[in-house]
Amino acid sequence: MNRQWLLAKRPYGVVGRENFEYRESPIPKIGDGEVLVRNLYFSFDPTQRGWMEDRESYLPPVPIGEPMRAGVIGQVTESNHPDYTSGDLVQTLGGWEDYFVARPGFSMMLTKLPAGADPAMVLSVLGTTGQTAYWGMLDLGKPQQGETLLVSGAAGATGSVAGQIGRIKGCRVVGIAGGEEKCAWLTEEAGFDAAIDYKSENVHARIGELCPNKVDIFFDNVGGDILEAALNHINLRARVVLCGGISSYNATSPIPGPSNLMNLVITRSRMEGFIVIDYLDRFAKAAEELTAWVQSGELVYQVDMQEGFENIPDTLNRLFTGQNRGKQLLRLGEPA
Amino acid sequence: MNRQWLLAKRPYGVVGRENFEYRESPIPKIGDGEVLVRNLYFSFDPTQRGWMEDRESYLPPVPIGEPMRAGVIGQVTESNHPDYTSGDLVQTLGGWEDYFVARPGFSMMLTKLPAGADPAMVLSVLGTTGQTAYWGMLDLGKPQQGETLLVSGAAGATGSVAGQIGRIKGCRVVGIAGGEEKCAWLTEEAGFDAAIDYKSENVHARIGELCPNKVDIFFDNVGGDILEAALNHINLRARVVLCGGISSYNATSPIPGPSNLMNLVITRSRMEGFIVIDYLDRFAKAAEELTAWVQSGELVYQVDMQEGFENIPDTLNRLFTGQNRGKQLLRLGEPA
Repeated sequence: MNRQWLLAKRPYGVVGRENFEYRESPIPKIGDGEVLVRNLYFSFDPTQRGWMEDRESYLPPVPIGEPMRAGVIGQVTESNHPDYTSGDLVQTLGGWEDYFVARPGFSMMLTKLPAGADPAMVLSVLGTTGQTAYWGMLDLGKPQQGETLLVSGAAGATGSVAGQIGRIKGCRVVGIAGGEEKCAWLTEEAGFDAAIDYKSENVHARIGELCPNKVDIFFDNVGGDILEAALNHINLRARVVLCGGISSYNATSPIPGPSNLMNLVITRSRMEGFIVIDYLDRFAKAAEELTAWVQSGELVYQVDMQEGFENIPDTLNRLFTGQNRGKQLLRLGEPA
Repeated sequence: MNRQWLLAKRPYGVVGRENFEYRESPIPKIGDGEVLVRNLYFSFDPTQRGWMEDRESYLPPVPIGEPMRAGVIGQVTESNHPDYTSGDLVQTLGGWEDYFVARPGFSMMLTKLPAGADPAMVLSVLGTTGQTAYWGMLDLGKPQQGETLLVSGAAGATGSVAGQIGRIKGCRVVGIAGGEEKCAWLTEEAGFDAAIDYKSENVHARIGELCPNKVDIFFDNVGGDILEAALNHINLRARVVLCGGISSYNATSPIPGPSNLMNLVITRSRMEGFIVIDYLDRFAKAAEELTAWVQSGELVYQVDMQEGFENIPDTLNRLFTGQNRGKQLLRLGEPA
């Protein structure tokens, strides 16, 4: 049996169970050149909220009635393709279901995991979130020794890696996160120089105190008021790396942008967006460097592992309530 | 006698005569190495509004009780400096007064005009506004043959040159301006492909119609709603050149920024600010190319020449009411 969570209704505001429909279908059959994959791990990412909307973006909207799209790791259970054999662990952009049929090299990239790879690491620090941090920092942020890096959503899967890459490159790193526990993790575990708790502190004032030489790079996952506060403190020729804007993803009406964009003019600064899929052909190279940093202890990461097919829809919302501790994953089972 | 308009009070909202104080002083005396200059032409620029505020920017605020700062062309009437002789026409950042003492090379750059130069041309298409258009377009906008360029404040001294440089570089050029007359000038005189009258048209809808291949470069002088409308239509890897934000300069409370900055992420686009004084050492090179375009007829410009010392404060406001037709200047007199 193939359990599925289908997108039933496009969301208005916060996503709930009513946006999905649970269905049980027969396990699909594969044809020539096809591979049957059983999903084991699901990745949860704020960008999934955007995929549910019916509007133009960097990927087409998830169609109503189709399984909700998600990054997955699964195991090949049946293969009619010469490059894959039963038992292979594979990573792809799949959906919220037990089984799916892949046509590798035609309609789908199906990347085999290296032998001995840890699926949680592959989906977090080596996966899209870690890669997003890596390319956003190195290609757009361009950290230089002695500069100040400010990161919002700093305890998240992307922000925490972005901040640590800045530290590795010699920056003073200040993170913005929600709550004492996350802030303590940043300074005590992840080697951030300082952390700002946006839930209890005046972010604008604290940036001023903690960034005495102003902000050279702002790696932003949040947008809105946090972006405005950061723009008050940018240095000459600052780089604002627009990675995401989670503060607006569940908004039911447009959230005004920062009123101080003229600071970009006065400081001759740049604000730039990017999408990590543009770097797909260089993921392997980045994964090597990220792995080396993890192995040397310079780069730490947290995985928040949930369990159970029935909990999939609620797990997505953990990202928006801030309940997640690091990379949000959900495990259906272990490889056979 | 030296007539002066001093900054008397920092503005709140629209600038009025109450922000300035008229004073008559003796003509200043020059010391060793100094030069006495009589002002003949004043340049009016939206950025002057910012100089009146008491806040950190790319130049210090004009002090209360000092002549209001302005770009000027004057004539040397007395010189104790070997590089200057009486009768020389010079350009500098001066103030609203008849006479001033310059210490060339020490506290002030005093650029001699080439023989036969037209002061109105030097202060407009070859001056800071033309230079702003030139460097903003070529260094940040990077126009490519066949791209679409959208310009706001398109009939202004900077916008009109920016648009024409885009046309010269092979772009389809659409301008946004206020009123039929300005829009007609853009398409009939300045060679823009199309113009949008923001006073009578739906800017968002019209950009969509007039930019069927989306917007590759948005050269923005306005900010606010116009910036938001433009961001709805940016192409992949668009460049948003933040030149100014005149819509907010007279605001008495913060004007919300665009709610759609996430479009920069989805399209992998860049928004970047700049200040033309960073290019001062290359002004001469740009002036050569701008002059050649004017002489070949590829680049046209308008000068709005007011007269009379008593009209200086009101002339500044012509920029904010949109009364100006092209570069706003005021003439006190002709060279002796």
